[in-house]
Amino acid sequence: MSTLDLIKPISVSSPSKIVFLVIDGVGGLPDPATGKTELETARTPNLDKLAAAGICGLSDLVSPGITPGSAPGHLALFGYDPVSFAIGRGALEAIGVDFDLQPGDVAVRGNFCTVDKDGLITDRRAGRISTEKGTELCRLLDGQVIENTRIFVQPVREHRFIAVFRGDDLSPQVSDSDRQQEAVPVEDIAASCPEADRMAGIANQFVAQAKTVLAGHLPANMILLRGFSRRPHFPAMGEVYKLTPAAIASYPMYRGLAKLVGMEVLETGAGIGDGFATLERNYGSYDFFFLHIKGADSAGEDGDFDRKVAVLEKIDSSLPGLVSLQPDVIVVAGDHSTPALLRAHSWHPVPVLLQSRWCRPDRISEFSESACLAGGLGRLPATQIMTLAMANALKLKKFGA
Amino acid sequence: MSTLDLIKPISVSSPSKIVFLVIDGVGGLPDPATGKTELETARTPNLDKLAAAGICGLSDLVSPGITPGSAPGHLALFGYDPVSFAIGRGALEAIGVDFDLQPGDVAVRGNFCTVDKDGLITDRRAGRISTEKGTELCRLLDGQVIENTRIFVQPVREHRFIAVFRGDDLSPQVSDSDRQQEAVPVEDIAASCPEADRMAGIANQFVAQAKTVLAGHLPANMILLRGFSRRPHFPAMGEVYKLTPAAIASYPMYRGLAKLVGMEVLETGAGIGDGFATLERNYGSYDFFFLHIKGADSAGEDGDFDRKVAVLEKIDSSLPGLVSLQPDVIVVAGDHSTPALLRAHSWHPVPVLLQSRWCRPDRISEFSESACLAGGLGRLPATQIMTLAMANALKLKKFGA
Repeated sequence: MSTLDLIKPISVSSPSKIVFLVIDGVGGLPDPATGKTELETARTPNLDKLAAAGICGLSDLVSPGITPGSAPGHLALFGYDPVSFAIGRGALEAIGVDFDLQPGDVAVRGNFCTVDKDGLITDRRAGRISTEKGTELCRLLDGQVIENTRIFVQPVREHRFIAVFRGDDLSPQVSDSDRQQEAVPVEDIAASCPEADRMAGIANQFVAQAKTVLAGHLPANMILLRGFSRRPHFPAMGEVYKLTPAAIASYPMYRGLAKLVGMEVLETGAGIGDGFATLERNYGSYDFFFLHIKGADSAGEDGDFDRKVAVLEKIDSSLPGLVSLQPDVIVVAGDHSTPALLRAHSWHPVPVLLQSRWCRPDRISEFSESACLAGGLGRLPATQIMTLAMANALKLKKFGA
Repeated sequence: MSTLDLIKPISVSSPSKIVFLVIDGVGGLPDPATGKTELETARTPNLDKLAAAGICGLSDLVSPGITPGSAPGHLALFGYDPVSFAIGRGALEAIGVDFDLQPGDVAVRGNFCTVDKDGLITDRRAGRISTEKGTELCRLLDGQVIENTRIFVQPVREHRFIAVFRGDDLSPQVSDSDRQQEAVPVEDIAASCPEADRMAGIANQFVAQAKTVLAGHLPANMILLRGFSRRPHFPAMGEVYKLTPAAIASYPMYRGLAKLVGMEVLETGAGIGDGFATLERNYGSYDFFFLHIKGADSAGEDGDFDRKVAVLEKIDSSLPGLVSLQPDVIVVAGDHSTPALLRAHSWHPVPVLLQSRWCRPDRISEFSESACLAGGLGRLPATQIMTLAMANALKLKKFGA
């Protein structure tokens, strides 16, 4: 039985409040010179105070050894098994640019690419054209109607874009036109079942149109499409947890993921302080807050150990405002580790802390990878964190009589 | 979704190398006189140095409390869920004597037994006849052809042998002739489905022939057969992990298990030093090495605490050669515990260590049961060890976008 199926019949609505702070990419690796990770290097007196009052552990988002992408990482934190609750690539990219994907829509990830005069792909990324150029080309393709199906084309970044097909009787059950190889032709899009014939026809017409439109736009004279998919339908947090949840996140990807699990997404600014201010401003109106802070992950991906340390210190300094709201439960976790030494997401388990009046504290008084190893939460799958938050908010009835 | 299904789409081939050292039966129980296990008693400075540089934990091969046989133990270490990837008894015994089981073959485990003049079994093991006697009797039964089916009979040990049926239209869907009781007759072998009628007929003729041939060979005047089974088809490590794996093991059982998961089995000698020398000699040709060392298990099964300590010290002294090859990832684990005090495999979790540049070391500086308890790997199912080895070798892409 999935965690959600276990929770749904025993969750109850109550006035208690949960604040779930996600420090994107919080986990790290030690600097060989000092033996300390980013989090161990940062001065974080407020996180440490919370750790001392609360209970700590290390969490695996997907499974030990598996490096989570942002979507599986966040779904796991929200309690949704990230292997069962998969999101197709097209839908995920659409969510990532804040496209308002409707239930019947089919979204696909696109690349501008270069083909030679024989139609063979010579560069799958069209020389990584600039985002400005990509945006300009998307405008040429956007808004077509083929067989009563409207096609939206929006830029993502550089050579990447999304196309969304909106109309009747569409289907995501069609193949990619992109074999992810060069020196081969662009593939015809084929239906995987008879119901998808119409969709395949429309998609192929769209590609043919694009070829005509882009003819004079070398190196971006063709497109590749992959990952046709629908907006997935996930059970809403309101139903599963009986919460009235709000999301505070400035990046489209995290706003989109929050919407998928039924959170209301609040308007907020891009700075770290903005997120905390938005929380304070809206504190009376919801009983669950997902507060997403991006900077530590970006610094890690840039390989900038010191900047990641600085971001963590800045987050720490904003914490007293959150604590002074006196939420019944505070969770601090991450959606994955992003060690500056690896310049990428990694598989290393993520420090997590939970503070509440009812948490049976451990002896940990420092929020760090090495301290959390000995914490009372132990080593836990991330999908269990929400259950613990709910329990500590006294929002779960007992299981069985 | 199984671990293998999760790994396969995200594994990538790369030049990095993994050495996976399996110390058979490594875990133990403390000598009541000293309070120290075999591993804690042994002087193992090189294992301790690796533990200090790496990350440690305790692993359950099948599940806490379940004592693993050698086959499930090894399959788990290779990342194959030992409950799903079962091997029939006949096939396992055949693999254990290095019989080259072909895809259509049906193998069965046999016992020489004693029956009285009424055909009732008086001793299921024929007084545990010597291996020499068993070998001689196998020669009398080996090589028959019944209905175009050739039957190979090979000794295992004492009263135990294997019979392998090779021909067309065979099936393992037949019952045992051995009820594992005495004072009952040898059972007729029955087909479990109509397709197995031919197989049951051939097997019963084989038993009848054996009865005639063995009539004058008391106490071994009859045979019992159980565990008709085929060579299982497991996904190859090359496909799942994109590795080019080699096995270094001198015992047939481990060589056979390695073949089942698609490893190339290297020629090697029986001594501890031989295994390490074979590793050094072949180091350039593969990117994954399973190095199996048997002696600690044998000493444990003999109840010889001191000899087990000596074997562990000998393994430790061979370790610098392995370390000097500078593999990207070194794993040291066991397929089960074999406490000398129990004289048998046991359910106790097995110490495991993993050392790599990217492993986020813990504070453990001793490779022992009690030290590993506080290690950064925590308590982990053995099927996760390969995933962690792959991650640390940077051979896994991230999961999801």
